[in-house]
Amino acid sequence: MHKQPFNKVTVLGVGLLGASVALALREQGLCGAIHGYGRTEENLRQAMEQGIIDNYSLDAREACEDADLVFLATPVGLFRGIAGEIKDILKKGALVTDVGSVKGGLVYELEALMPEGIHYIGSHPIAGSDSSGAVDARPDLFHNARCIVTPTPGSDKKAMERIISVWKSFGCTVELIDPFRHDEIYAAVSHLPHLAAYALVNTVDDINADYISFAGQGFKDTTRIALSSPEIWRDIALLNRDNLIKFLGLLKGNLEKIETLLKDSDAAGTAGEFAKAQELRRRIK
Amino acid sequence: MHKQPFNKVTVLGVGLLGASVALALREQGLCGAIHGYGRTEENLRQAMEQGIIDNYSLDAREACEDADLVFLATPVGLFRGIAGEIKDILKKGALVTDVGSVKGGLVYELEALMPEGIHYIGSHPIAGSDSSGAVDARPDLFHNARCIVTPTPGSDKKAMERIISVWKSFGCTVELIDPFRHDEIYAAVSHLPHLAAYALVNTVDDINADYISFAGQGFKDTTRIALSSPEIWRDIALLNRDNLIKFLGLLKGNLEKIETLLKDSDAAGTAGEFAKAQELRRRIK
Repeated sequence: MHKQPFNKVTVLGVGLLGASVALALREQGLCGAIHGYGRTEENLRQAMEQGIIDNYSLDAREACEDADLVFLATPVGLFRGIAGEIKDILKKGALVTDVGSVKGGLVYELEALMPEGIHYIGSHPIAGSDSSGAVDARPDLFHNARCIVTPTPGSDKKAMERIISVWKSFGCTVELIDPFRHDEIYAAVSHLPHLAAYALVNTVDDINADYISFAGQGFKDTTRIALSSPEIWRDIALLNRDNLIKFLGLLKGNLEKIETLLKDSDAAGTAGEFAKAQELRRRIK
Repeated sequence: MHKQPFNKVTVLGVGLLGASVALALREQGLCGAIHGYGRTEENLRQAMEQGIIDNYSLDAREACEDADLVFLATPVGLFRGIAGEIKDILKKGALVTDVGSVKGGLVYELEALMPEGIHYIGSHPIAGSDSSGAVDARPDLFHNARCIVTPTPGSDKKAMERIISVWKSFGCTVELIDPFRHDEIYAAVSHLPHLAAYALVNTVDDINADYISFAGQGFKDTTRIALSSPEIWRDIALLNRDNLIKFLGLLKGNLEKIETLLKDSDAAGTAGEFAKAQELRRRIK
């Protein structure tokens, strides 16, 4: 890839991921100016002072003017509205991608919104954390991370190659996965665990909130992701609701299975359930 | 505390906790010989070769002969049986304690089993991990750990002081909690999270076991404790089943609450549930 293949890059949403994208672009010398957009001026001003972005705007259309590459990096529930807002001021040949955790039908909708000659390619770098602020951004956040790119039959091949090339330059391992399959996979290994962690903490709240002070490392690890932004995860949960409603049913079923084994004082059955989980979990130890 | 206040100490079960107790006793110069008991000779032989124990026996009675202090450190489901086996060969004045994760009625049973002049005091050092083998034992495992001691109205005060003193010498912060309250607290913050982690992994198994390869840090943390020994956790789950059955019901209720919010596409309600959990979880960040 040539150096500085993008004159102007716009990052819509300058949180942990958006700001890290900006830092990585800069570090790789992939762009001229980086323009930020967000809803909180204070955050944008700080990002500018820290040299993460060169300029900012509270208006998404203004921020995207003349941009060669646009990253949607707000909570995923805002993508549709922002894409609708900016689509007719985007420059011919502009590339649009995102860092969202939900793909599926959203990818098709965003693709369909884009005017002729402007290409949207969905991306999902697996590099978040329970922190969501620009303050924790790092240029190497994507280093050795997986990045899922979700082509559709309508994806422009050249645009896709360029987006893949950007993620690779950030140190990502890129994998191509169908948008709907992506959502099923990440509902299982990321979104459902978030719901489980939130529900587990709320269960302690139901029992006795003060018991939380007795939590040890096991509880801390199991519920770390319950520290994640409610706004970001509300959007993810709602956009991936069909998978999650199905999987919540399966999770309740597995809890009920254990409940029944305990009610029956079934020692072998209980150990069997635990051993089954231990065995699968060991695959990623 | 005087140096070497115990001539002979017996550790029943030389796993992570039992072996760490032995190493800590040795480091603190609290005992003469340490005798180990277990069901697997290979493990005992290795522990002896590594200097964790001085001697071992595959017979619990033999192992406890002439012991001044006995630690029950097998899976908790074996405590009753072993206590019944050893009780009449224990030396007058011997102290018996344990490292088990379940207290409640078990503490009263063990106390009642002990003959006149032999004192049982329940302990629960909060210092396990998903590993359960002697190979990970360390003399400082209990350093800065909390140790719950669970007195009953029948507990001998002097015996209790001596047991507390041992844990403190290991670097523990000792707290006295009623045995039944202990079980409610640890069902909430430790035992239920284990069941949730096992159930979550089994849910991925239901969906598609191969999806586990897409797991990121969130999934790894949330399910780390599903690596824990099925045997140890079967015993804990069964012995604390009354609390766990109740709490599994609450957890399923919280999952159902989220499920309903998603079905209703209730954005504010969903964010509210997540924010409630985030707030409580932040107390132990």
